[in-house]
Amino acid sequence: MAQQLAIGVDLGGTTVKTGLIDSSGTILAQSKLPTLAEVNPAAVVGQIVKSIQEVLPHAGGRPLAGIGIGSPGLIQNPGGIVKSPPNMKDWDVVPLADEIRKVFNVRVEVDNDANVAAVAEAKFGAGKQYPDFLFVIWGTGVGGGIIMNNQIYRGPSGGAGEVGHISIDYNGLLCNCGTKGCVEAYVGQKHLSKRTIEKLKSNPNSKIVEMVGGDLDKLAPMHLSQAAEAGDALATEILTEAGTLMGVMIGSVMSTLDYRVTVIGGGVSAVGDFVYDAIRASVQRNVQKPMREEIRIVRAQLGNDAGIFGAAGMVL
Amino acid sequence: MAQQLAIGVDLGGTTVKTGLIDSSGTILAQSKLPTLAEVNPAAVVGQIVKSIQEVLPHAGGRPLAGIGIGSPGLIQNPGGIVKSPPNMKDWDVVPLADEIRKVFNVRVEVDNDANVAAVAEAKFGAGKQYPDFLFVIWGTGVGGGIIMNNQIYRGPSGGAGEVGHISIDYNGLLCNCGTKGCVEAYVGQKHLSKRTIEKLKSNPNSKIVEMVGGDLDKLAPMHLSQAAEAGDALATEILTEAGTLMGVMIGSVMSTLDYRVTVIGGGVSAVGDFVYDAIRASVQRNVQKPMREEIRIVRAQLGNDAGIFGAAGMVL
Repeated sequence: MAQQLAIGVDLGGTTVKTGLIDSSGTILAQSKLPTLAEVNPAAVVGQIVKSIQEVLPHAGGRPLAGIGIGSPGLIQNPGGIVKSPPNMKDWDVVPLADEIRKVFNVRVEVDNDANVAAVAEAKFGAGKQYPDFLFVIWGTGVGGGIIMNNQIYRGPSGGAGEVGHISIDYNGLLCNCGTKGCVEAYVGQKHLSKRTIEKLKSNPNSKIVEMVGGDLDKLAPMHLSQAAEAGDALATEILTEAGTLMGVMIGSVMSTLDYRVTVIGGGVSAVGDFVYDAIRASVQRNVQKPMREEIRIVRAQLGNDAGIFGAAGMVL
Repeated sequence: MAQQLAIGVDLGGTTVKTGLIDSSGTILAQSKLPTLAEVNPAAVVGQIVKSIQEVLPHAGGRPLAGIGIGSPGLIQNPGGIVKSPPNMKDWDVVPLADEIRKVFNVRVEVDNDANVAAVAEAKFGAGKQYPDFLFVIWGTGVGGGIIMNNQIYRGPSGGAGEVGHISIDYNGLLCNCGTKGCVEAYVGQKHLSKRTIEKLKSNPNSKIVEMVGGDLDKLAPMHLSQAAEAGDALATEILTEAGTLMGVMIGSVMSTLDYRVTVIGGGVSAVGDFVYDAIRASVQRNVQKPMREEIRIVRAQLGNDAGIFGAAGMVL
């Protein structure tokens, strides 16, 4: 079969990044335009169309499998409808897939950032050899995507894979969402910073203090990773503890779906193996016995271009 | 389209119950034979074959969509291989689907009791109108099945839907399986009985004491239900508390899969609405916000014949 071509659009709050990609994962052309989020939805759609028109000629007349778009906001699928993306002026509900299909008359898929990143790993990254895996994105918060039989599983209305709000303690910390014990309330940036500041009181010599130049208000997860990489015991302890709690949630999802593989990306991809080891050990304690030997916890492989790759991957 | 016919086999430790069923859910013929579990696997397979041969003539020559079998033990799918069913002599690993297919030369599906009960509700019971729902069976323990797009979802190796071992407290009660905080450790028969005995110390006038004839060693979940139905406050409290914890687990699974509907069967189907109300309220607190208004927690409809109906339903 000849190489298929697809266009992937990574819609961000400030920039629209678009790429023409073939099914082996080669980027044939790229475009980068301002989103114009501060104008109105029509302007944003206009920029998406323009960015596609910029890369399309590089297809050299070969047929296009379709256009994939990764978007912020709540995505309703089937339908590719984008609801209330943060920081986009006057954007309530926009049928984005329809708007783009009208112009180019090809298949258009729209999905959220976590699902797009999951597809990127499935088609071009750490998940290539696994038809079924859970993808977890661990950064400021916790999101996820479910790859099932080589496809993204979206659920009846597009919301599947939102694993950050699984409770790991029915009587635990109150999450922003109103539920008690969501894993995000334990391993999200806000809680990790709070916990670090608490623990620094009895560990004033930790390298973390140095990393933030003495100003703990500046503390970000990056500083924890850097301190841990530099051998700081407190940073290592905090991240290991967070990995262990993350593993409880991942174990629950893997048991439910009978999955053996989880790919983890986001900010944590920059952290040392010890976090992945902590997650793996915890998952093995938390899944059903017959699965324990087969558990794989894998680091995501795609970085900055995951958005473009995954968006294109949805239609390849 | 003409009515399809299928055979459903409910393989139990003592009895093989088999039915010839049409796609509207009418039982055209039934057979009931001893399992001969105490002899050996060949004898058990022989009884299954015999029971199928007993109902088959009632098809009147009309074609058969296939044979479904609900079996105890660990079922490996694809393949329909049955591993280590409890109380079946010399049964280690038997490729049951193959054994039956060899004899009748039709499609054969084998699955575990919880998945079969889920299919029964999907095709003939409380889940008929829902293409996607979680099925939970709450009896001595907690099991489950995932109905996805009108089919059972088995996962990569047949173990999906085992929701009883989802942890609702990472630092909670130790479960038989070795994990901490499994929902089964909180709402399974063993724990409920223990909790009842503890609480009776300060509630000596509870109707529960009367229900077991004064002998608390005889305490079974049935007594809790009966006492609650008779208006006993302690029994109602214990079951409501259990329902609330069950709802934490169900909420996690519904969020992960983007599901709005859960059908609950097993011993709890005999209990009053207050347990379902407690589960529903808890699920609503535990799922993501946009889902809360749409949550349905539904009582299973099929009783004794669920095994036959669900087994047949797998091939209809």
